[in-house]
Amino acid sequence: MTDRSGADPSAPGSSTGLDLHLELPAGGARRTALARALREAVRSGRLAGGTRLPPYRTLAADLGLARNAVADAYAELVAEGWFTARQGSGTRVAEGAAASAVRAAPAGPAAGKPRHDLLQGKPDPASFPRGPWAASARRALAGAPTEAFGPGDPRGRPELRRALADYLSRTRGVRTGPENVVICSGFANGLRLLASVRPRDWALEAYGLPFHHGVLDAAGVRPYPVEVDEDGMRTAELPSRARTLLLTAAHQFPTGGRLLPARRAFAVEWARAGGGLIVEDDYDGEFRYDRRPVGAVQGLAPEHVVYAGSLSKSLSPAIRLGWLVLPDRQVADVLAEKGLRESWASALDQLALADFIECGGYDGHVRRMRRRYRERRDRLVSVLAARAPGARVTGISAGLHAVVELPPGGEAPALAAARAAGLALDGLSGYRHPAARGPAREGLVVGYAAPGEHAFDAALEALADVVRRVV
Amino acid sequence: MTDRSGADPSAPGSSTGLDLHLELPAGGARRTALARALREAVRSGRLAGGTRLPPYRTLAADLGLARNAVADAYAELVAEGWFTARQGSGTRVAEGAAASAVRAAPAGPAAGKPRHDLLQGKPDPASFPRGPWAASARRALAGAPTEAFGPGDPRGRPELRRALADYLSRTRGVRTGPENVVICSGFANGLRLLASVRPRDWALEAYGLPFHHGVLDAAGVRPYPVEVDEDGMRTAELPSRARTLLLTAAHQFPTGGRLLPARRAFAVEWARAGGGLIVEDDYDGEFRYDRRPVGAVQGLAPEHVVYAGSLSKSLSPAIRLGWLVLPDRQVADVLAEKGLRESWASALDQLALADFIECGGYDGHVRRMRRRYRERRDRLVSVLAARAPGARVTGISAGLHAVVELPPGGEAPALAAARAAGLALDGLSGYRHPAARGPAREGLVVGYAAPGEHAFDAALEALADVVRRVV
Repeated sequence: MTDRSGADPSAPGSSTGLDLHLELPAGGARRTALARALREAVRSGRLAGGTRLPPYRTLAADLGLARNAVADAYAELVAEGWFTARQGSGTRVAEGAAASAVRAAPAGPAAGKPRHDLLQGKPDPASFPRGPWAASARRALAGAPTEAFGPGDPRGRPELRRALADYLSRTRGVRTGPENVVICSGFANGLRLLASVRPRDWALEAYGLPFHHGVLDAAGVRPYPVEVDEDGMRTAELPSRARTLLLTAAHQFPTGGRLLPARRAFAVEWARAGGGLIVEDDYDGEFRYDRRPVGAVQGLAPEHVVYAGSLSKSLSPAIRLGWLVLPDRQVADVLAEKGLRESWASALDQLALADFIECGGYDGHVRRMRRRYRERRDRLVSVLAARAPGARVTGISAGLHAVVELPPGGEAPALAAARAAGLALDGLSGYRHPAARGPAREGLVVGYAAPGEHAFDAALEALADVVRRVV
Repeated sequence: MTDRSGADPSAPGSSTGLDLHLELPAGGARRTALARALREAVRSGRLAGGTRLPPYRTLAADLGLARNAVADAYAELVAEGWFTARQGSGTRVAEGAAASAVRAAPAGPAAGKPRHDLLQGKPDPASFPRGPWAASARRALAGAPTEAFGPGDPRGRPELRRALADYLSRTRGVRTGPENVVICSGFANGLRLLASVRPRDWALEAYGLPFHHGVLDAAGVRPYPVEVDEDGMRTAELPSRARTLLLTAAHQFPTGGRLLPARRAFAVEWARAGGGLIVEDDYDGEFRYDRRPVGAVQGLAPEHVVYAGSLSKSLSPAIRLGWLVLPDRQVADVLAEKGLRESWASALDQLALADFIECGGYDGHVRRMRRRYRERRDRLVSVLAARAPGARVTGISAGLHAVVELPPGGEAPALAAARAAGLALDGLSGYRHPAARGPAREGLVVGYAAPGEHAFDAALEALADVVRRVV
């Protein structure tokens, strides 16, 4: 046992009583080593499902680590599904985490493939428009200026920034020009940049992606979770200390609500009045099924909203491209944080996307996928209505996932049944921010976009079997 | 003036006496704000060329910042050319930094283009093989398995890892298999990963890229610079405390020496005997002009060397691809540090490169560029021999740059003359590690690969004019 404090957490005098067999190296490696030791402790059964982890502070003091290092390690394991974090009861080892260890192992997504995959977050990989994209890539390569093959501009290629400014204005009501667009390599990359240039008090929706919570944690952000309901975040409950607000306005992630117009107006007024900044994560704004797409909040107040988007849902996460549309006063800060070197995304992909947007290929792809995902959603709803009639499915008017609501106490047995059936999907409680108060909901988050056509029906049947048992 | 300590650095009682007009936000933004304030102080003339900056500790204490935050900000400004760092005399404001401010401004490389560009680090953008690459990209897209368009594997595409393992074994004598290759988005990205999983004591060559020094600084690495001469690093002077050694063995960067076989053997023995790890930065190992390429150190001891390479010199920095070839025991650590999300490079570029290597396109391109760069180097040497006969040009047997050695006191006037002539290039002293002891050399680092054919002769004439004045 090596640590700076000299304390031995496995000794009786330790306040945590956790025996992690830790050998902590120096520097940044300490967090990695802690996360690895925690994973190993779950995998080996030394930390049983349901065990409550010690508070950050306690374990940090025991190990002679910074509190942030422990918080980061916890967030990492929550994001990977080893731990769950719920209001009131702190961080716990996920039930069945050891059994499903294969899925989260660093060996990568290929290892331990589930029989049925309804994990959210993935568009349909089989629908990638190979031919049209190849044509755009070829045209882009042939027409690119020579300097495009030299060191890149951290702002991104001007061709893409122009194309995106037009596209976002036309389809999402974003008001901007190319000079306010900064290309990044995905939303998380953009979030990291923003976290580094903003004051540390952030308001967050009480539900969100644990990976994003971890990114903010690692950047030293102090989170203030605000409750969400079927109409999105309850903006009236915005804490006065927060200077930045992270918002999924078009389709709250993952609970599915659309932010009420009055709440949009309230959020914008909050930003205007107090010099605050809204970060609008428009992760699936293009896939609206019940009406025309809900416009971006950014259009209401371009000087107070950062609009963030990426290709990860609309086209493919295999192309590492995202974008920030920034208010004037944020552009220089974000570029300074990006730095001049190694901070740009593949120029070839950027040029190909610019062409793909301008030739209409991107619009066509989004239209096609909207029809396809809507049809998928209809099948999900009708199978559950027929096979598990008690189930309530929400968040279905947009996006690539839905929530199957479950009664209190229903989520853990549903997840256990799903694991037993080889059905990969997440519980809603895993998306709740660890610091959120108030009653948590239970449910299943069901991604319906990615399964192959041949696999989707079987996955729905497996889902209906699981849900029927608990509603 | 806002800071945590309440101290006001502009007040007479301050130990630095620097008036930076700092308003420091919380969290990660503080380093950014400090760097910005320092840049602004240089640009406005408040910090004149040659001014010695206060030591990290002193300024950190004055501003209530962590020492690392100040060290990072200094490293950033050294990397950007605002500051210089020399042995014995600490960090100083670069002479003429205010005048050349345009080049380093975050607005990007497009702003303030110099008349003649002999900055090192860039391959020839006009030679990018557009047609062959487009053909590889098309074949790769057509033949990719469906899962390639879904979430990526942090290890990288298996197709590329196989192709690289073969290629590096064939051309660089690297001994590895695909399972030890991890794709990253450039060398700096790989260096960051390694810095996070290794103990903090690193031995470095006394000369290197300031940007890399900054990356290591930011990761909390404690650097031990070791002197270099015409035969590369003096490995006999390796400090016993260091656990990791960063090495440019084939072509010391930027001084140009090739590591003597006896020194290679010594470094490997050092790693073997003490459980150390060598990180071999093979940034331009493919461009050897005097004989067959010098093989990688990795081939001598695959279990003690991380071999690192990228496309940035061999093909183009516009494709953000690099690779680490890792000893077995490092693979899991690096993957754990990478994490599962947002940590992979464009899958489409990866697949295209795999095809490009396998169809022989990459080999052909490297051969072609070797001939071209060798011819460029010959012109550089002959123009200087004719026009500035006193100049000694070194490091010329490989790579994309050379060093024009200058007598003591010659570098600053040469850089000033270069700026006056609109000639962009770096002084050798800017590459010296701030913590290196012993006598520093002076010189000019001349990149000869990137200029267009029409511009190269004029740039060489301008260089010869500058050099003639000081030798």
